[in-house]
Amino acid sequence: MTSEEFRKHAHSMVDWMADYLDNVEDYPVLSSVKPGEIKAQFPNSFPEKAEDFNKIFEDFEEKIMPGITHWESPNFFAYFPASKSKASILGEMIMSVLGTQGMVWLTSPAATELEDRMMEWMRDLLGLSNDWTGSIQDTASTGTFNALITAREKASNFQINENGFFRMPKYRIYASEQAHSSIDKNVKIAGFGSKNLVKIPVDENFAMIPEKLEDKIQKDIVSGYEPLLVLGALGTTGTTAVDPLEEIGAIAKKYHLWYHIDAAYSGAALICPEHRWMSKGLEMADSMVFNPHKWMFVNFDCSLYYVKEPDLLKQSYSITPEYLKTDADEEVNNYRDWHIQLGRRFRALKLWFVLREFGAEKLRTIINNHIEWAKWLEKEIKKSADFEMLAPVPVNLLCFRFNDGTMNEEDLNKFNEQLLKNVNATGKIFITHTKLNGKYTLRLVGGHPELTKGHLERAWGLIKNTANDLL
Amino acid sequence: MTSEEFRKHAHSMVDWMADYLDNVEDYPVLSSVKPGEIKAQFPNSFPEKAEDFNKIFEDFEEKIMPGITHWESPNFFAYFPASKSKASILGEMIMSVLGTQGMVWLTSPAATELEDRMMEWMRDLLGLSNDWTGSIQDTASTGTFNALITAREKASNFQINENGFFRMPKYRIYASEQAHSSIDKNVKIAGFGSKNLVKIPVDENFAMIPEKLEDKIQKDIVSGYEPLLVLGALGTTGTTAVDPLEEIGAIAKKYHLWYHIDAAYSGAALICPEHRWMSKGLEMADSMVFNPHKWMFVNFDCSLYYVKEPDLLKQSYSITPEYLKTDADEEVNNYRDWHIQLGRRFRALKLWFVLREFGAEKLRTIINNHIEWAKWLEKEIKKSADFEMLAPVPVNLLCFRFNDGTMNEEDLNKFNEQLLKNVNATGKIFITHTKLNGKYTLRLVGGHPELTKGHLERAWGLIKNTANDLL
Ligand SMILES: Cc1ncc(COP(=O)(O)O)c(C=O)c1O
Ligand SMILES: Cc1ncc(COP(=O)(O)O)c(C=O)c1O
Repeated sequence: MTSEEFRKHAHSMVDWMADYLDNVEDYPVLSSVKPGEIKAQFPNSFPEKAEDFNKIFEDFEEKIMPGITHWESPNFFAYFPASKSKASILGEMIMSVLGTQGMVWLTSPAATELEDRMMEWMRDLLGLSNDWTGSIQDTASTGTFNALITAREKASNFQINENGFFRMPKYRIYASEQAHSSIDKNVKIAGFGSKNLVKIPVDENFAMIPEKLEDKIQKDIVSGYEPLLVLGALGTTGTTAVDPLEEIGAIAKKYHLWYHIDAAYSGAALICPEHRWMSKGLEMADSMVFNPHKWMFVNFDCSLYYVKEPDLLKQSYSITPEYLKTDADEEVNNYRDWHIQLGRRFRALKLWFVLREFGAEKLRTIINNHIEWAKWLEKEIKKSADFEMLAPVPVNLLCFRFNDGTMNEEDLNKFNEQLLKNVNATGKIFITHTKLNGKYTLRLVGGHPELTKGHLERAWGLIKNTANDLL
Repeated sequence: MTSEEFRKHAHSMVDWMADYLDNVEDYPVLSSVKPGEIKAQFPNSFPEKAEDFNKIFEDFEEKIMPGITHWESPNFFAYFPASKSKASILGEMIMSVLGTQGMVWLTSPAATELEDRMMEWMRDLLGLSNDWTGSIQDTASTGTFNALITAREKASNFQINENGFFRMPKYRIYASEQAHSSIDKNVKIAGFGSKNLVKIPVDENFAMIPEKLEDKIQKDIVSGYEPLLVLGALGTTGTTAVDPLEEIGAIAKKYHLWYHIDAAYSGAALICPEHRWMSKGLEMADSMVFNPHKWMFVNFDCSLYYVKEPDLLKQSYSITPEYLKTDADEEVNNYRDWHIQLGRRFRALKLWFVLREFGAEKLRTIINNHIEWAKWLEKEIKKSADFEMLAPVPVNLLCFRFNDGTMNEEDLNKFNEQLLKNVNATGKIFITHTKLNGKYTLRLVGGHPELTKGHLERAWGLIKNTANDLL
């Protein structure tokens, strides 16, 4: 592709991108293709000859687009949003052409130093104290992995790093029953074993019961285990429940546990001082993760990992082969030592674009609107005779179900499962589910920067109508 | 930012991007800023008010660009190239606007199924047998981590996954002295301990000596260790040395070791049948990594992880919380179970663009040209009275140094270190170093898709002149 061709194709691409953003609500949110349908359209083997880009792009529109689930739609109310903004897209465009590698300061000083600064900006924006420092990771899963590895090395005095787990104590990790599955995955791969992840029961609001935590710790000590780390959720995935971080922190301190906070999603609300009731006790923690790629309008991937003692983290990961040594090593951050990967994208750039193009004020307004509209919908659901709320609404996730009082639990589960399918099959919105106390629960969360109250009103109308039709 | 504003800014961005690609050779390849210079230009705290995008972009050009090391330049001869192509940039542009998450098939069927297909295309293009299957990862570091975790779980019959390392044998991992540092990092974090990574000596070509490997394994068995995994390098980082994969494979088989191949860089050459002498024995392996983001013109990140037994991999990582369950789970790949992360970008798209827009033929021509020109330069260096080669050139990396026969080893090291600094200070090219048998070695590798022989001729001229000036 010549330079002129690139310019031409990239301009057409921009028009396609802008049109897509304009018309995203016309697509069915959830793709309705059947397994195997997309794959079958592509030949078994790679092409020998170069093809014209226009032809490739036509194929993209015709063959790929029907298999896309539209995470970009404001009517995407599923999982957690991976909502991005136009400023962030512009950031990704520059990243893609520079191809900057930030593994070592020298490989692009600006990538490291803008990241230094962005981690400070974000620390302040989230209302964290100056004790925190950190780096940008790909995902919260690897951020939580960092916490486990660092805790392991601190407790073993870097013995595991050097000698492996051999002759080590049986460590125990604690998290609430509602904690995100990344902790389950991580305790396995970090070598602790899934049996040593102790799930602590939750209260009626799905928040960890601190007394139960202390109970388990005491029993474990008696049984010869070594309590290592406790994870506090600032917003669980199922219901955005907030664990009592202060009480957990006191227990962590008492028993010398590493204290890690998973604020992957709800952390975004901390940019508004009025929601910082959630982070009370967070300052007692040793590490935390927060994903701007979820609800702060930065393209995936962009996850922030903060720690109090960065040297422990660096020591856990550090390697210095000859070919990576530079003269500046003593003066700068070499972020390859802050996570499992070596190569790293220039993620600070898009975060910087978003922070400046929105400004803190506007970001706070949007987050506050999302929360206010969710509380409005909560009231509507509570008022309705046919639906009920199944969890509190600390931020903007609604957990509810159809229940007109005429069905038993089993039938309710079946009905709500079918309701979810029918709602999603309309293509107008996409919602997902969870199970709370055995109840099939509809989960609805809107986090698009251009979400309006109207989107939620229409979603609610659609759900009510679909339930009526199903009855 | 309104839709119209986005369209306008994105079009200007495209012009900037195309101009950048046109003029990239006018920038100094290696940024010459001092530590802290970039950071100091940005305020301590985040902005409250929204700012105009034009102003932000001006700041980008003025404050960030001087701190960029230009990985995109054909005169970037450092590390390994992270060379990308225009087709791949267009792929990243679409990815950025769709924001597709491919963690579960349902979250975008096209992302999963195009990935299925691309892994097949790449398998065939690399000349691998049909036994291999795999998925796209972010980096080779995490790919090699997968291999360690899977080997660990297979050997322990999933006991480590469940119970942790407690009462496990002392596993040993083997790799050559020249293997990439990602194995050092990974043995630590996977819980084996750095002491249990056994580095096997290399021969005069920097390839592993298989007899030494067998030696170590036998000694370890006698000492009560359990040999677990051996890594064979298909192209080391220092010199692109190729380990004798067949001999290592036979040893791996004999002692029942997991056999992992690191073809992160040189794997690209396997698309040309004439370079498949390197992969003889690769079919004996259990897993391998190859990075299209290094020398196959796909934007970082895009790393392929292939395995023979994907079920072992999935079982090592699998988690199925309620909110991730879908009806299609039995019929499709849910790639979240193929690596450490949960969220994942639609990387298959850019790979597909590159494979089609280039076609295999053109990709092979480019790779072959790079190799041919490197061999030309090798001859020039060998002819020169003042320089000497320090390693063979299996593909396109040159390891050499100035040596006019008048200096002792210590002075040679000092001279070559200064030579490297002076060459890089010109801004005209960027090369890095390694140490081979204690010798300070200049490393030069060109992998840009638009590299010409002229770029190498000019680089060689510059190095010779700079050495003369330094004398
Ligand atoms: C509370 C919580 N923690 C962690 C994660 C994992 O996020 P990531 O995909 O960035 O690993 C999620 C994802 O939804 C989450 O909701
Ligand atoms: C041979 C080899 N293996 C692995 C890696 C690690 O690559 P990544 O940055 O994708 O983890 C490199 C990086 O240069 C390499 O040269």
